[in-house]
Amino acid sequence: MNFADRLFEAIDKKQNPSVVGLDPRIAQIPDSIKEERLAKYGDTPQAVAASFLAFNKGIIDAVKDIVPAVKPQMAFYECYGPYGVEAFQLTAEYAKKNGLIVIEDAKRNDIGSTAVAYAKGHLGEVDTIKGKARVFDVDAITVNSYLGTDGVKPFVELGKEGKGAFLLVKTSNPSSGELQDRRLKDGATVYEAMAKLVDQWGTGVVGERGYSAIGAVVGATYPREALRLRLMMPKSPFLVPGYGAQGGGAMDTMPCFNDDGYGAVVNSSRGIIFAYQKRGGEYDTAARAAAMDMKKDLQDAMVKKGIYPW
Amino acid sequence: MNFADRLFEAIDKKQNPSVVGLDPRIAQIPDSIKEERLAKYGDTPQAVAASFLAFNKGIIDAVKDIVPAVKPQMAFYECYGPYGVEAFQLTAEYAKKNGLIVIEDAKRNDIGSTAVAYAKGHLGEVDTIKGKARVFDVDAITVNSYLGTDGVKPFVELGKEGKGAFLLVKTSNPSSGELQDRRLKDGATVYEAMAKLVDQWGTGVVGERGYSAIGAVVGATYPREALRLRLMMPKSPFLVPGYGAQGGGAMDTMPCFNDDGYGAVVNSSRGIIFAYQKRGGEYDTAARAAAMDMKKDLQDAMVKKGIYPW
Repeated sequence: MNFADRLFEAIDKKQNPSVVGLDPRIAQIPDSIKEERLAKYGDTPQAVAASFLAFNKGIIDAVKDIVPAVKPQMAFYECYGPYGVEAFQLTAEYAKKNGLIVIEDAKRNDIGSTAVAYAKGHLGEVDTIKGKARVFDVDAITVNSYLGTDGVKPFVELGKEGKGAFLLVKTSNPSSGELQDRRLKDGATVYEAMAKLVDQWGTGVVGERGYSAIGAVVGATYPREALRLRLMMPKSPFLVPGYGAQGGGAMDTMPCFNDDGYGAVVNSSRGIIFAYQKRGGEYDTAARAAAMDMKKDLQDAMVKKGIYPW
Repeated sequence: MNFADRLFEAIDKKQNPSVVGLDPRIAQIPDSIKEERLAKYGDTPQAVAASFLAFNKGIIDAVKDIVPAVKPQMAFYECYGPYGVEAFQLTAEYAKKNGLIVIEDAKRNDIGSTAVAYAKGHLGEVDTIKGKARVFDVDAITVNSYLGTDGVKPFVELGKEGKGAFLLVKTSNPSSGELQDRRLKDGATVYEAMAKLVDQWGTGVVGERGYSAIGAVVGATYPREALRLRLMMPKSPFLVPGYGAQGGGAMDTMPCFNDDGYGAVVNSSRGIIFAYQKRGGEYDTAARAAAMDMKKDLQDAMVKKGIYPW
């Protein structure tokens, strides 16, 4: 089944176009979780990784009936080496077992056989000595496509097998404009040129709902740009960072949706997983309450905009 | 000591501006290496990872007195999960122990605290529960800077601690032009706009030899573009892929050097590590011979161009 079809089916099921970013930071993990691992593994990357996994399982249990997807950010895991990467792998496995779609935020990029290695390792099957193995097996991954078609093709190929990719177009950060906003001779900006490429790359992997397995990352912090990009990439699902902690409100994310009420999935990381630091109480209970608030916030905005599909 | 100073000192020591790409592929690893690991670990990613490590150690032993640096491509390791990442980590450790500079090819990119996680995990120190730990601790890493300053700053910071980064400017692949060659309103191309940014980012971390810890990736397959880029980023060391298997010759890499004979380090991966498939004999002996040929090839080109510095 096409990734976009799977994604929007999951969104329908939860009536919620949001995704929880699993971006653990050791300083913000509750002491109760850390102490046990510190005692077991000492003050090591292994103890951090084990804390992350326990923390994530608590979050997943708390939000699995509310949200359709989670988005673990690979950077926070791989910076702890093999143990961190294992915690990522087990987090993805646990999320999938609990019916969640896993979007890996890794912004991978390379060319030729190297891009193939990334695609196969994260989404497909790698060659072992005599056979094949699935390694991370997430549902979708973010990709930086500065290198052009050579770097995107392996992900498009896996789009034919039900996997997805979200390509960076206009990112949510303050300095994203330094290169992305530069104006080309033909009047378009660099990010618009990228949008055109993304639209083309996604053509061959469109699902039954009219959406492609090749999506785009479009920051909620630039709603005006998002409006133009929505028109330029009508069939690409948008992964929308920047809601919540980065300053974007629910109404800012609305330009990322099509008039059918689909086409976008909005991410919140810190605002959900570390909600307990503002709300008090247990971290999982607080995350659940924050996820429900976000769902309502997005639903209200959709109603207001007249695109509520449920 | 500034990364560029360390790199060019190592190049002086070997009189060789080349780097061996450690890009293992399981199908091309000699059977003698694989059989032992297959027997021990079964047909698993762990057996692949163990084969890679053994293979890499053989390559490092064979070339360590000839080349100044190695460049393991993270994609080929991480696609095998935690065991693969561990093989990467142990490869880097072994190379450093043998006096080689390790340039990690990972093309990482993100923003804010996520970019910091990448920088600290690969080049610096990460927070454990109570203290700090070094995880990959390579000397330099490749970075994709499509996201602007936010994504580069953490690497510049580590430039002050002796670490380095090579930022993608003009990549060696056929489709690199789709975005990178687009012409901006002011007449420059996108890759030239990127070059200007790279030059600015590197200003604060220039070493004693006048070179910056912030370098650039410039493909040998585009020598004309390289000539312009060399002038635009006079103080950035260039990491030059595309020599050998990708079609670039030694003379094609010369525009990446400054008139002082420094400023570039040329990579060859398959052409060295899998030389045994063309030359016959043991893989390590063949790699050594190929590395010596490449050294001579580059030295001859430098003499011919009148920039031989030794």
